[in-house]
Amino acid sequence: MKHILLAGSGRSAAALIHYLLENALQEDWEITIADIHPGSSVHPRERRILFDVTDEFQCSRETQRADLVISLLPASFHSRMAVDCIRYKKHFLTASYVSEEIRALDTAAREGGVLLLNEMGLDPGIDHMSAMAMIDAIKTEGGKIHSFKSYTGGLIAPESVDNPWEYKFTWNPRNVVLAGQATAHYMGSNQLKYVPYHRLFKNPELIHVEGIGLFEGYPNRDSLQYIQAYGLENIETMLRGTFRMPGYCKAWDVFVQLGWTDDSFKIKKSDEKISYATMLNSFLPEGTGPLELRLSNFLGEDIDGPIMEKLKWLDIFNEEEILFTEASPAALLQLLLERKWALKATDKDRTVMQHQIEYTINGKKQKKTSSLTVTGSDAVNTAMAKTVGLPLGIAAKLILQNKIRVCGVHIPTIKEIYVPVLEELEKHEIAFIEKEEDVTD
Amino acid sequence: MKHILLAGSGRSAAALIHYLLENALQEDWEITIADIHPGSSVHPRERRILFDVTDEFQCSRETQRADLVISLLPASFHSRMAVDCIRYKKHFLTASYVSEEIRALDTAAREGGVLLLNEMGLDPGIDHMSAMAMIDAIKTEGGKIHSFKSYTGGLIAPESVDNPWEYKFTWNPRNVVLAGQATAHYMGSNQLKYVPYHRLFKNPELIHVEGIGLFEGYPNRDSLQYIQAYGLENIETMLRGTFRMPGYCKAWDVFVQLGWTDDSFKIKKSDEKISYATMLNSFLPEGTGPLELRLSNFLGEDIDGPIMEKLKWLDIFNEEEILFTEASPAALLQLLLERKWALKATDKDRTVMQHQIEYTINGKKQKKTSSLTVTGSDAVNTAMAKTVGLPLGIAAKLILQNKIRVCGVHIPTIKEIYVPVLEELEKHEIAFIEKEEDVTD
Repeated sequence: MKHILLAGSGRSAAALIHYLLENALQEDWEITIADIHPGSSVHPRERRILFDVTDEFQCSRETQRADLVISLLPASFHSRMAVDCIRYKKHFLTASYVSEEIRALDTAAREGGVLLLNEMGLDPGIDHMSAMAMIDAIKTEGGKIHSFKSYTGGLIAPESVDNPWEYKFTWNPRNVVLAGQATAHYMGSNQLKYVPYHRLFKNPELIHVEGIGLFEGYPNRDSLQYIQAYGLENIETMLRGTFRMPGYCKAWDVFVQLGWTDDSFKIKKSDEKISYATMLNSFLPEGTGPLELRLSNFLGEDIDGPIMEKLKWLDIFNEEEILFTEASPAALLQLLLERKWALKATDKDRTVMQHQIEYTINGKKQKKTSSLTVTGSDAVNTAMAKTVGLPLGIAAKLILQNKIRVCGVHIPTIKEIYVPVLEELEKHEIAFIEKEEDVTD
Repeated sequence: MKHILLAGSGRSAAALIHYLLENALQEDWEITIADIHPGSSVHPRERRILFDVTDEFQCSRETQRADLVISLLPASFHSRMAVDCIRYKKHFLTASYVSEEIRALDTAAREGGVLLLNEMGLDPGIDHMSAMAMIDAIKTEGGKIHSFKSYTGGLIAPESVDNPWEYKFTWNPRNVVLAGQATAHYMGSNQLKYVPYHRLFKNPELIHVEGIGLFEGYPNRDSLQYIQAYGLENIETMLRGTFRMPGYCKAWDVFVQLGWTDDSFKIKKSDEKISYATMLNSFLPEGTGPLELRLSNFLGEDIDGPIMEKLKWLDIFNEEEILFTEASPAALLQLLLERKWALKATDKDRTVMQHQIEYTINGKKQKKTSSLTVTGSDAVNTAMAKTVGLPLGIAAKLILQNKIRVCGVHIPTIKEIYVPVLEELEKHEIAFIEKEEDVTD
């Protein structure tokens, strides 16, 4: 019997747990689900334990017991789990970005024969795998790639859209509120491009995804590091981006401009009551008159226009007292959004991904577009949980079956990983639609 | 004989060292000047040593040898020096803001009978002392204070202005480049105000200082904490600000908007040469055409207007290769500015301070304005070094003479400190001019 330790079982874990349990008997696995709120077991091969990642003794004991550790914990805990994995020669799997701390473990992992496989969810994850499948195919045909653009969004299915943002939380709300605070880096027409946070949401690109319509895309983190990871040296355009529904970015930018996404200082509860209205006032230039009017003047937006409509819908002019002791502006914004952007039980979410690759083959310019749309079933069985969880589950199976045999720190850009994972994803109806067209300059 | 340890003797130290040596024989002091570049002694009571603050043994040995430690080291080193001071019961003096680490030492310092006196330079320093003198006087008269505003600037004397920014470095260039990156906090007409960095330089206030003209002021850091420190509970307006010459803020804001003051990531030297022109291009939206035109379009500024004039003068369109391996945008901006904003040997700097206090007395609204202008002699004997160094030197003398006897963590807001220091500052021609006027609503 093989033992899998799943550390962290928050809302993103449902599909992964389902996959692991579904395969447990056939693969002869025992699954330990370790969390602060462990829940109770329903499957004979499921073991639920109360888990405290700061308890070093428990961490090392559970790691020793496992053959493979999957971490869905907050990213800051990964490296301490990975260090234990190297010590006890266990493989390690996450959906998170490779941190500096994890990268530093590469030599030790390789020497120990341990795989630390990261970025194995949706974005990052499925995006890397499907991109590499396209890139490798184009290269095999003899094509030369000039431009790579890729966008992913965790959105809401049209039938569940019932607010003017056309957005709800299907993932960690804190990550949504703080998204993009580091300067974005990408390559645009042979020019290095840096986009500071306060300009990130100002000019989204409009992108059409066949069959489902228009989306906004804004640059996501550091795209430059994937030039080498994807083997695209000397590429002219390299951009990874995030999808939102049209109109979202300019409205979100209001919070950036106000300073409401600031997580660097804490507002202290004073003697006076603090409401979203008083908080808004604090971030607006001094002035008098109705707040709505002052905000629309500050923004230079029509008081009845689509941006103000989104803000009004969020209730940011509410004068009720906020119950808290001290919190950053970002935390108070998150509190408001969690109320307004919560999924209803029957809501369906939708993850959307698109790659656009331009290349030259036999002297001709071509463009390949590859798109993925996955729709969730309800607020628990979300497309997000499925597209993050399945790649992790499939990779777990392949590792334990000895079909993935590389060691060291990896992301799923190599064939040994992406070919079998994409193959099985297709059986779960996670399949891309490709389109090819000639490009005329 | 009393021993003073001065840790750090950068360009800000000249006036302080001069004061200490001038008083050394009469006060029976020995002055140890400890620095990585110690220089050589010229005075019988001067001892110069090569000093490495990371060498714990040397630090503790020199602290034990001293009766008083003055730190002009970068602020991050203060707390380790202060810990040694508490251990060996030595007083400690800096011109820096009280950090959380220093604040946490208050109880230990009080129990040990040790004084940790901070914010004892110009701003913070002279501003606190002169403000408290005014505030205490108004309170003694029976006045009720509604509004306190105070501005300080380290600027250039008009006769030395020879560039369109009317600015040169008279202080740590890195601090000037990174100034204001935390959200500014102040109280404006009974409203808490938070100003995020990307809006800090957009709308400076215009302030007239009698006899010398107009200045721009923008809010400096967290003014709110001084409400309690100054004993101004329930005040309606509380603002500490920074002076610049008119036109400076909007031009500086260009660097903020571009992202050139970002110190959070490093640009790596690539195969291609990087110049200020290519760096500018990286921070501009994608486009073609002459850089100057693209920048002026991006800013919405006239290509021949005063903002573009300042930018052109700084040579930001220069296509020469910058020699570096890796550096943050802020570090590369600093590199450029250090060349352009360097003081010439004969340049005179000027520090300008103004307090504005509005209060009610006997049912009448009054306003008191108090202003200070100090002009330097040349690029070494600057007004900045004098106004930072003298308060430190005078405080050192008063502490060693046992005339300042408080213990614990302090800033110079108490009479025991500010009365004798201001008195001696006046003898050195650091004197405020007060003006009083009636206020009509």
